[in-house]
This record gives sequence, C-alpha cells and structure tokens, in this order.
Amino acid sequence: MSKEIEPIARLVNEFSKLPGVGGKTAQRFAYHIIKSDRQVAENFAQALLGAKDKVEFCPKCGFFVEAGHACSYCTTRKQNVVCVVAEPKDLLAIEKVHGFSGAYHVLHGVISPLAGKGPKDIRVKELLARVASDGVEEVILATNPDIEGEATAMYIAKLLKPLGVKTSRIAQGVQMGSDIEFADSATLQKALENRKEI
Amino acid sequence: MSKEIEPIARLVNEFSKLPGVGGKTAQRFAYHIIKSDRQVAENFAQALLGAKDKVEFCPKCGFFVEAGHACSYCTTRKQNVVCVVAEPKDLLAIEKVHGFSGAYHVLHGVISPLAGKGPKDIRVKELLARVASDGVEEVILATNPDIEGEATAMYIAKLLKPLGVKTSRIAQGVQMGSDIEFADSATLQKALENRKEI
Repeated sequence: MSKEIEPIARLVNEFSKLPGVGGKTAQRFAYHIIKSDRQVAENFAQALLGAKDKVEFCPKCGFFVEAGHACSYCTTRKQNVVCVVAEPKDLLAIEKVHGFSGAYHVLHGVISPLAGKGPKDIRVKELLARVASDGVEEVILATNPDIEGEATAMYIAKLLKPLGVKTSRIAQGVQMGSDIEFADSATLQKALENRKEI
Repeated sequence: MSKEIEPIARLVNEFSKLPGVGGKTAQRFAYHIIKSDRQVAENFAQALLGAKDKVEFCPKCGFFVEAGHACSYCTTRKQNVVCVVAEPKDLLAIEKVHGFSGAYHVLHGVISPLAGKGPKDIRVKELLARVASDGVEEVILATNPDIEGEATAMYIAKLLKPLGVKTSRIAQGVQMGSDIEFADSATLQKALENRKEI
C-alpha cells in the first residue's frame, strides 16, 4: 500500500525539486495546498507559467525583463559605471544599497572548472562588447569573495586591461556589526591588507 | 523603480504563502523556476491543480483519497481497532511504525478555544458514529502530547465511555535515544508515573 495517493505524491515530488526543500517540507507544502481553496492552487499555477512565459533576459545587462518591456536598468541608468555580478539575486542585493546608480552586467555564473563552466559559459563576451562600444569608464567586479568569484573577477580584469577601462573589485574585510574574535583568518588578513588611514 | 518585475514578484508572492517560507527563500524558489525548463513549471502547475482536483477526503476515516477510488485504509484494514489522529500527516507517521494494522480516524484538528475551534469543528461526531455501528473494540487516542491534544483526547474519551468501547492513549515518557539529563520535567514526571515493572 503506497503511503501517499498519486496526486499528492506528485505534488510532493514537485515541491521537493525546489532548492533546499526535503521530503518533510515538501509534504508540508503539499498539504498546505490541499487544505487551501482551489483559487490558491490556480493562482500558484498561473504564476509559475507566467514567470516562464513573461520573463526574458535583457540581451544587454542579462537581468530579468518582462517580455515586451525595455530593461529599466539599461534605459534609465547612466552606463558609464557598470557593476558586474554573477547572478540576478546579487543585482537585487546591490540595489538595496543606497548610492549606487550605475548600470549592471549579470554574468549568469562564474568560471568553475569543477562544475565544467568556462569563460564561454558566462556572459563575458557581452561585457567586453559593452565596454568597447558604450563609453564605459569603470567596471566594478562584484562577484562573490570566494575562490570561483575571485578567479572570475581576476580573469575579467585581465581582459579589460588592454581596453583601458578602470576596473575595481568590491572591498573585502570584516563584516559590519561582526566580532573580530569570530572572523575567519582569511577575512582578517584581507581586512589588515586593505586597511585605510583615518 | 520596482525591484522585481511583475511576473517574478507574483511568483515570489505565491511561494511566500507556503508555511515557513520567507521572502528570501521564496525568491530563491522563483529564480529556480525561471532558470529551469518550461516543462518544470508546467509539471508543477499541473501537480498543483491535480492535487486540488483529484484529492478528496474519505468520508469515513477523513484521510486523503484519490477521487473515484476507495480509501485503502478503510477497505483493507480491520476496523476493530481505530487510531485517532489530529492530522493526515500524523497518520503517515504512525504508518511508518511496524506493527499497527488497524484503522484510522483523522479529526482534522484539535479542540482549541484560543483558535476558536470547538468539538463541532473536528470530526468527533463521525468517530462516535463509527464506534456505534462498526464493531470497534478499541480506540487509540494519538493526538499530540500537548495541552490541546491532551484536552481533545480527554474530551473524546469521556464521550466514548458510555459506549463501552476500550479507550487508550499513546504512552508518554522519555524519548528513545534521548538523555534523561535534558528531558523536560513534565516529560520526566510522565515517565515516572507510567513506569513499567520489568
């Protein structure tokens, strides 16, 4: 005798494909849907398909854009400073910071030999084209401060050098509000190396 | 400028309605869908609607049953012992235990005055009808060992008494594999009260 009847098992299976969702959580989600009104499932189903059908990538910056709409980051922002990020969610994180009003470039990944991702698998070529034609004055490399993010930033910096564009990397140091006591040594080393005179 | 375009915001909103899912997690789920093939979203959407359209509650035991199918717990199990649980997920937990081969009765809730839930809001009447007509010999009350679960079990036990059916409550004591040192005093008290001669 199967534990779950087929329509429930199927929904649990779909939920369990989401990142970080295990069997128990997927079951909880599925039961939530079953206990809700049909309208909840309908809205959810429409939102899923809508997100696939109405979302495209901006051919220039690589961020999401609603189908048939112009990319607001590419049309309303000055293009002289371009902040390069690995993923769309990184763009949103930087948008929450007051003060940055430049343009973006989403790579859609980082160079990762272990994952079989090389320079051609991320949007480097598109970045070089922008820099060559768009009057870009500075490229800020805002990939993650980990091994792959660093390697990707270094690789791009090397390609940008001959183009004569100013290239910078986001600062690395101890986190705001954190305890030096608990900072890892790699972070502390960066914090000391990058110390600023006050 | 809005942070998220409408189709994404809508999907994030639907995901964030799931129990225990916050904004960041909902966004991660939504991006996962957007990065997946359209087939993933289609299957997901169909599973959501299927779970609503093809799942019914068994009028007898209250567990989920596929529309048009007989309830396997009510048709294949002996009905002389009935295990009463608050929610369908509790039934599944007990099913994982080897040894129980009786029937079930899902209350769909517990008596909870604070949540405005009285005896009429859970499936007590249906339980009494089964006991009166189905030749039930024993009712095992397996609601949670918390205040509301205890109160619900006591309430049902009181109603069953005049019917002359054996009524039992699942044992309460220290958890298997746990440390007595860390057991709460309410649990330890139950463990001492319910001690068994060996």
